Amino acid sequence: MIVVKLGGSAGINLDPFCRDIAGLVQSGQRVVIVHGGSDLTTRLATELGHPPVFITSPSGHTSRRTDRRTLEIFQMACRGLLNQQIVQRLQALGVNAAGISGIDGRLWTGTRKDAIRSVENGVTRIIRDDFSGTVQAVNPGIVQALLGAGMVPVISPPALSTANEPMNVDADRAASATAAALGASDLLLLSNVPGLLRSFPDESSLIREVKRTGFENAESIAQGRMKKKVLAAADAVIAGVRRAVIGDARRENPITSALAGEGTVFA
Amino acid sequence: MIVVKLGGSAGINLDPFCRDIAGLVQSGQRVVIVHGGSDLTTRLATELGHPPVFITSPSGHTSRRTDRRTLEIFQMACRGLLNQQIVQRLQALGVNAAGISGIDGRLWTGTRKDAIRSVENGVTRIIRDDFSGTVQAVNPGIVQALLGAGMVPVISPPALSTANEPMNVDADRAASATAAALGASDLLLLSNVPGLLRSFPDESSLIREVKRTGFENAESIAQGRMKKKVLAAADAVIAGVRRAVIGDARRENPITSALAGEGTVFA
Repeated sequence: MIVVKLGGSAGINLDPFCRDIAGLVQSGQRVVIVHGGSDLTTRLATELGHPPVFITSPSGHTSRRTDRRTLEIFQMACRGLLNQQIVQRLQALGVNAAGISGIDGRLWTGTRKDAIRSVENGVTRIIRDDFSGTVQAVNPGIVQALLGAGMVPVISPPALSTANEPMNVDADRAASATAAALGASDLLLLSNVPGLLRSFPDESSLIREVKRTGFENAESIAQGRMKKKVLAAADAVIAGVRRAVIGDARRENPITSALAGEGTVFA
Repeated sequence: MIVVKLGGSAGINLDPFCRDIAGLVQSGQRVVIVHGGSDLTTRLATELGHPPVFITSPSGHTSRRTDRRTLEIFQMACRGLLNQQIVQRLQALGVNAAGISGIDGRLWTGTRKDAIRSVENGVTRIIRDDFSGTVQAVNPGIVQALLGAGMVPVISPPALSTANEPMNVDADRAASATAAALGASDLLLLSNVPGLLRSFPDESSLIREVKRTGFENAESIAQGRMKKKVLAAADAVIAGVRRAVIGDARRENPITSALAGEGTVFA
């Protein structure tokens, strides 16, 4: 079984992605899809007059400020629209897809952060009403039920907090935990970059392979959003997934290319 | 098994509805929920500067004009937000709910209308780019898979057209077809009215019971949106559902009240 995470950034075309999925499914491969929805959320938030705010943690991670209204906008854009656009395209290609979110069947659960720290102009501020957290447990029952019925699950954030509230989570790390829980052979993390670059943004500096002994070094090389992808790839391999590939979603055959080792392979 | 349709009009409180569902599920009853999202769609469409348009057919039925943008807004509001608000509330009450739409697993399929006729100021106009239609086939596999895994399916429109496009459908009639396909014992159609009224809007003129011989007469009495509810109830009983009840979603115990015969009972 393969778990494929499709990034939600601008410039990613759903059609080649879905065609590639259809080819794999028709060859008998079991596939689970996880997706983000960052760009569509930003656009809807702007249209609704609640423009996005991004915060930087003291350790340098950047994330979306998720107040209650932003969480609703995220659910509408990511779960309501993008998820269903993927399902609809797959259905048109003869793939019996079904969209679920991390709250359906309590698929992804975890603790919401009580307080997050945001650094603004060198000053650290505490934010207490943010709806974000990390997936701590995967309950794969709903995914297994859909796979057992011959369907391709298409999974969207958010997750469910222990207080039963929706909670924004990093979809790369959620996909990693899902691949581990399902005993997947491969985790593919596809976005608008060719893989981990030694000298960002120089695409010729692509690192083609990271062995276990190099996971920590890879984390220190990664910049910005790539940090979470490297953590997600490393966590999956440590948890028993045979191989994790950070690959390019912008290719004509993004999934078969990643399976052929194009990108950065963690093993 | 009981199929419960919750209307999406203004003034319906999700909390008593979900508490009543939880009580039934905990007593061992198998439940499938279908919901609309009319009011939330109207509000989001207005916020996004694409206000709703309602059209009246030559036979007097009123429906939402569903151009491509309205369809997206509907998916965001109904499938993205309201569906997940129901799932989240049920999860908080210990019910393992899972949200799906009519396109997931091809649950609801049908033919999109090539052309719809709209009467405006006595003049009939033809509209060709409307994304609406009627559910002609129910593929209950995804619902059965979720029920088999111990979950409560929460189903949202849209449906999938034979051309693999999302398509707005009447959720009362979709719930009716779903109840028939699942072999449900009861179909409950709950909204912000007490049932079928002989003299709308006089709530004291509630019709308590409609036998098969009275189905046509009931259809002729029904006004506006109630026409589709009466058709949905009658169709379900004709297709083998033991009983269909048009009941009041505004009560403290909307589901157990309808099961106790409060409302208009078709049998």
